[in-house]
Formats: sequence, C-alpha cells, structure tokens
Amino acid sequence: MESAYLDHAATTPMLPEAIEAMTAQLGRVGNASSLHAAGRRTRRVVEEARETIADALGARPSEVVFTSGGTEADNLAIKGLYWARRANGASRILISAVEHHGALDPAHWLGDRQGATVELLEVDEFGRVHPQTLRAAIERDPDSVALVSVMWANNEVGTVQPVRVLAGIARDHGIPFHTDAVQAVGQLPVAFADSGVDALTISGHKVGGPMGVGALLLARGVDPVPVLHGGGQERDVRSGTLDAPSVAGFAAAVQTSVARQAETSARLVGLRDDLIRRVRQAVPDVILNGDPVNRLPGNAHFSFPGCEGDALLMLLDAKGVECSTGSACSAGVAQPSHVLLAMGADAVRARGSLRFSLGHTSTEADVDRLAAVIGLVVERARRAGLG
Amino acid sequence: MESAYLDHAATTPMLPEAIEAMTAQLGRVGNASSLHAAGRRTRRVVEEARETIADALGARPSEVVFTSGGTEADNLAIKGLYWARRANGASRILISAVEHHGALDPAHWLGDRQGATVELLEVDEFGRVHPQTLRAAIERDPDSVALVSVMWANNEVGTVQPVRVLAGIARDHGIPFHTDAVQAVGQLPVAFADSGVDALTISGHKVGGPMGVGALLLARGVDPVPVLHGGGQERDVRSGTLDAPSVAGFAAAVQTSVARQAETSARLVGLRDDLIRRVRQAVPDVILNGDPVNRLPGNAHFSFPGCEGDALLMLLDAKGVECSTGSACSAGVAQPSHVLLAMGADAVRARGSLRFSLGHTSTEADVDRLAAVIGLVVERARRAGLG
Repeated sequence: MESAYLDHAATTPMLPEAIEAMTAQLGRVGNASSLHAAGRRTRRVVEEARETIADALGARPSEVVFTSGGTEADNLAIKGLYWARRANGASRILISAVEHHGALDPAHWLGDRQGATVELLEVDEFGRVHPQTLRAAIERDPDSVALVSVMWANNEVGTVQPVRVLAGIARDHGIPFHTDAVQAVGQLPVAFADSGVDALTISGHKVGGPMGVGALLLARGVDPVPVLHGGGQERDVRSGTLDAPSVAGFAAAVQTSVARQAETSARLVGLRDDLIRRVRQAVPDVILNGDPVNRLPGNAHFSFPGCEGDALLMLLDAKGVECSTGSACSAGVAQPSHVLLAMGADAVRARGSLRFSLGHTSTEADVDRLAAVIGLVVERARRAGLG
Repeated sequence: MESAYLDHAATTPMLPEAIEAMTAQLGRVGNASSLHAAGRRTRRVVEEARETIADALGARPSEVVFTSGGTEADNLAIKGLYWARRANGASRILISAVEHHGALDPAHWLGDRQGATVELLEVDEFGRVHPQTLRAAIERDPDSVALVSVMWANNEVGTVQPVRVLAGIARDHGIPFHTDAVQAVGQLPVAFADSGVDALTISGHKVGGPMGVGALLLARGVDPVPVLHGGGQERDVRSGTLDAPSVAGFAAAVQTSVARQAETSARLVGLRDDLIRRVRQAVPDVILNGDPVNRLPGNAHFSFPGCEGDALLMLLDAKGVECSTGSACSAGVAQPSHVLLAMGADAVRARGSLRFSLGHTSTEADVDRLAAVIGLVVERARRAGLG
C-alpha cells in the first residue's frame, strides 16, 4: 500500500504539465545567452516562461528574476536590498520572527558580519504580525530601515499574514518590502502588483514544478545588489546560465496551479478541516497551532501534549503516513521550532508538534489513513515517554 | 539539414545516461531533508550521486557541496573564502586575469564593496599564468593573501593552466587555492586530491548533465562562509533544498564523461586539429589564439583580421554553423574579450574572434560544414567591413 504523503509543504509532486514541459527541453541543446539559432530558441523558451509566470502572478515579465529556488531568492532579496540601501546609511532589517530560515538566516548573517541591525517583528499567539507592530518599529527611525521582510504565509503553522497592509506601511515610508510567498502560490490568490510588495519569492518545487528553480519578483526600480556575480544574466541581478528546462517546467507548474487555485483551495480546505476534526476526535487534548481562520488551505499543525514530534513522525512513517515536525529544512535537528516559540509556545509543546500539509495529489484516503492510526500512535508515544 | 553545433563550451547536449537518471526522479516526491520514507529515499539518491561524483573526480563524498551551477560555486569559493580569511586580516585576492566572469566578478565586487584588494595575475601571450608570477605576488606579503583563484582551463581560448604547480605554491604559504574546472572535466583528467587545490568548481551542463546544478569540491578543513544562508543543507555551507533529480543527472554525466574522457579527448583532438588545419587553409591569415600545446581538446579559437566576430557569428549561423565570440555569458555585449586583452591582443583583434568548441556529439560532418563555409563567410564579412 502506498504511503499517505502529508508533507506537501516540504515538496509536492511535479504536475504532469511541468514534467512534460521540462522533459521536452532536456533533449535539446542551447544556452540562452548564445546568439546563434540554438541559443535564440533557448532564449525564447526562457522568455515565454517568464511571460507565463508574470501573467499568472500579476507581474510584468521584466519583474521576474529566475533563481535556483526559494532560498536563493530570499537571500537575494534580503542581502541584496540591504547592501543596496546600506550605501545610503540604512542599516535596520525588520523581519518577522516566524520567517523561513531562508530569510531569517541571511538577515542574521548580515547582522553578525555586515553591520546590519536585525529587529525581529513579534507575532501574536496565532503567528500574525500586527500592522501596528511594523508601524511602531519603522517609526522609531524610518530613515534607518533598509528593508522589511514578512512572509505571505508561514511554512510551518500556515498562518497567512496581512501582507498588503504591511507592505502599504513600508511603502508609506519608502522602504522596500519583501515577502516569501513560497507556500502561498497555488493555495491563495497571489497578485504581485496589487499586493504592493517590492520583492516576492516563489519556488518551483512547492507549486508542482521542478526543484532547483525559483524566482524573485522585483518591482520596477527595486535593484538589489546581486548575490551571485558573473556573466550578467537576468539584467545583471542574478548571474549564472539560465536553466531553460527547469524554467519551462516551473512556468507550466505556476500556470497550472494558479489556474486551478480556487478549485484546489476549496478542495484542500474540505480535506484539511476533516483532518483537523478527526485528529481532534482521536486525540482530544491536541492543540491546533496557527491562525484558525487565516491559514493555508493545505496546512494543519498540531501540538500533541506529552509527545516528542520526532517520535510521532517515525511512528507515523512506520504506519505509512509521511509528515513533518516543521520545516523540512531543519528537520533532523532536535531544536524546538523558532516559529512556535515566537508564538509563545514553550519548548516542550514546540517539540511535541507535527505538520500535516496537503497538496494537489491529496485525497480523502490520505486523511483516512492518518485518522486510522493517529490515536494509537499518540498513545504509544505517550507510553514510551512515560516508560 | 541540422546545424553544426560548435558551441559545446557554452553548453553541451545532455548525455542519454543523464537524461535517464534525471527523468527517473522527476515523477517521484521527496525532500532530502525530510525524515520519512520519501525523504530518506530522496536522501539516498543525493548521497549516491555525491559518492559517484567524488569517486569520478578523486575526492571524498564529504568534499562535494552541491550548488546551482558553476557561477554559484565560483561565488561561494571566492566570496566564501575571502570572508572566512578576512576575519583573520587577509584581504588580498590573487586571481588570474583570464578567469570566467563567474570568478572575476565576485572578486571585483569584493574589491568594490567588501574591502578586498584584487590583484590580477598576468598571463603570457598564450594565456598562461606563470608560477613565478604567482610566487612573486604572494611573497610580496604572504599573510595578507586571502585566496588564490586560477582556472583549470580557459573557457574562451582553451589554455590549460599549470594548476598543480600553482596550487603547490599557494599551499606552501597556507593560502587556499580555488580553481574553476568547469571546462576541464570530461576533457582532461581531473583528480581533486592529487591536484592539491582546496576548492574546485564543476558544472552540470558543461559535462552532459542538466543545467541548474554544479558543485564546489572543498578539501577537508576548508570552510568558506556561505553565500546562501538558510536551512543548513550541505553541512551548512550551502542552504537550499537539494535538487535530487538534477543531482542524479549530474552524477550520471560526470561518471559517464569521466569514464570516457581519454577516448573522447583523443577523438576531439583529432577533430579539432583537422578543424584548425582547414580553417587555416580557407583563411590563411587567421590567428590561432591560446596555447598551441596545453589546450582543451575541444577548443579552437581564432582571430580573423579585418572582421567583427559578431558579424562572422551571424553569417555562420545563417549557414548552419553555431559558434561563439567568446563566453556565452557575455555574448551580446559588444566588448572585446578580457581574456584576449590580457593575452596582449588589441581590441580590434579581440573583437574579430570566434570560438569553435567541440564535444561528445561532434563529428567530422560538423567540421566539414564549417570548412565549407568559413572562407566565404570571412570574405563577405571583410567586404562588408570595407564597404
């Protein structure tokens, strides 16, 4: 029997449309920077992909900068905007305490090694950044703020941030605003221009596209210092040979997942609410983490009192249910989630947590599988914990 | 009729082995950092690829750090080693004047914005860095040298550098030595440990693997500061989700191209020498650039007096011959090659240059096609230049 894959937030299977678009290019040769026919053909593949992505996300093609993934896009936004603004004396980075490590760690590095002052924007018990929190932080000294970074939706607990309002506050002070929308695309409507953000991170493999590709959407006039220097591709913002096959697969995935977003989201909300209900039934003292209303359609995140998340994860895995203790990126590290801690959970509760994330291939059967075993698994973990 | 593709140094077609290894993974799901079965399966794919690459290149698996390509690996080596050594007061970067922009531009950025002093190591008329040049530069003040970077073989003119000797000089002073071996792997024997270098860049799509993937080989104890911060993948040296399908395809390409290297090189040398002979026959005043002996098997680089390289390129393209004026990365920019200028060529000669590069799919028919048209094309370009 196949496992129930409930870890779509870590990575989701490629859509058939993306596999097809990508594999069609693997057998062809051409560097998009080459001037000859093979180069021009490859360039067309890349530029059509750029237009597709821009169109799907309400951006201009010239605003799409391809990267190797979400982490690189986050690094480019945060380091690049910091370096660009630092030249004018701005050195404060305002960043939410619940960001993905791909955004948080570049900020901390800039703080440790490059003269930045990193100020974490606190969140409430649901993981939300309140507009007044950002406003107060900016207004302490607006001219010294290099950039603001608050994610569109949290990868662990699924909380959706009031990005448009936050971006508006930054904009009022002329401060560039970055958002990591890696988890949002395909699950929520994401419209770049309408959102008012200046830089927006997306990732291929989180939307049914290939790994190893992503993009930073950059509003006109927003010019980060490059993180990767070299041949001058992507208008000199990101050097490196353009990965035409991956870019083509990425575009197909963005197009498909955005076109189906409303339908997918409605379906996932139904599945997820059922999942939450049945987990609560099986484990009455379970705690649902994250915002009960403003959350990603595919996200259910719980704390199981008296359990270690890692132990639960392995027991569930043995029963054919695949999930995560939090971000896949830091899985394996026995540290409590910085997201839950920022939300006010203590370390014990934070360590006793699991994320179930649904995606385009999820079915009721996956929820059935989880519901059939979660009660027993939690009971066993608790016994082991007591024994 | 199909074009004669003589631009393998820009990118070479994927090997069937690489396409197969990669596509086998595209339909499967799993994040190599996830702890469940799908994650562990993906992790095995990545670790087997790492072992394959290490084995093929005479390195340890733990010395392979996957990146998004050659440019990122060069950036990681140069910025990362600079930042690591800068902490101890070393600030000079010694780098050859003929490096790829992926290495040269990070160095210049460090010079412009991060307090580095960039010293270009001069080359002779064949593009070679002489050991005494490096020795003299180091000995002016050994403790102040943060790193040395000299490529294994030049991407434009094909000149092979005395890397082992140069690395030995750096090692004698305890200075980390980086080499960009992107063009060398598969055409020359590349053995990491034997070479004595501390950091070595390789790229997927230059060896018959996919685009968007590469690696930096890092000798034990060499710890660059990361360029991409985040989830802590690759022993915290390079964050970002590991692109398992591309890594699998990359490993298959490295394994296959290294296993066939001797045979491929012998064949390419034959084709290339024939190409050089026939171009000289058709255009008696043509100048062969680069080292006549120590050069890449697949590289032929010429200056055509009285011609613009771009014009020649487009005329050849119209006749079904695809080549380059230099690095694909800077193609389209009407600047004379920094490589040729460093070799002592004037701007006019530099601009009148073309690179023909052969690879695993090249045949005598490709050379025939070029030989049939090069004389006429040069004649036409000269007439246009005069008219």
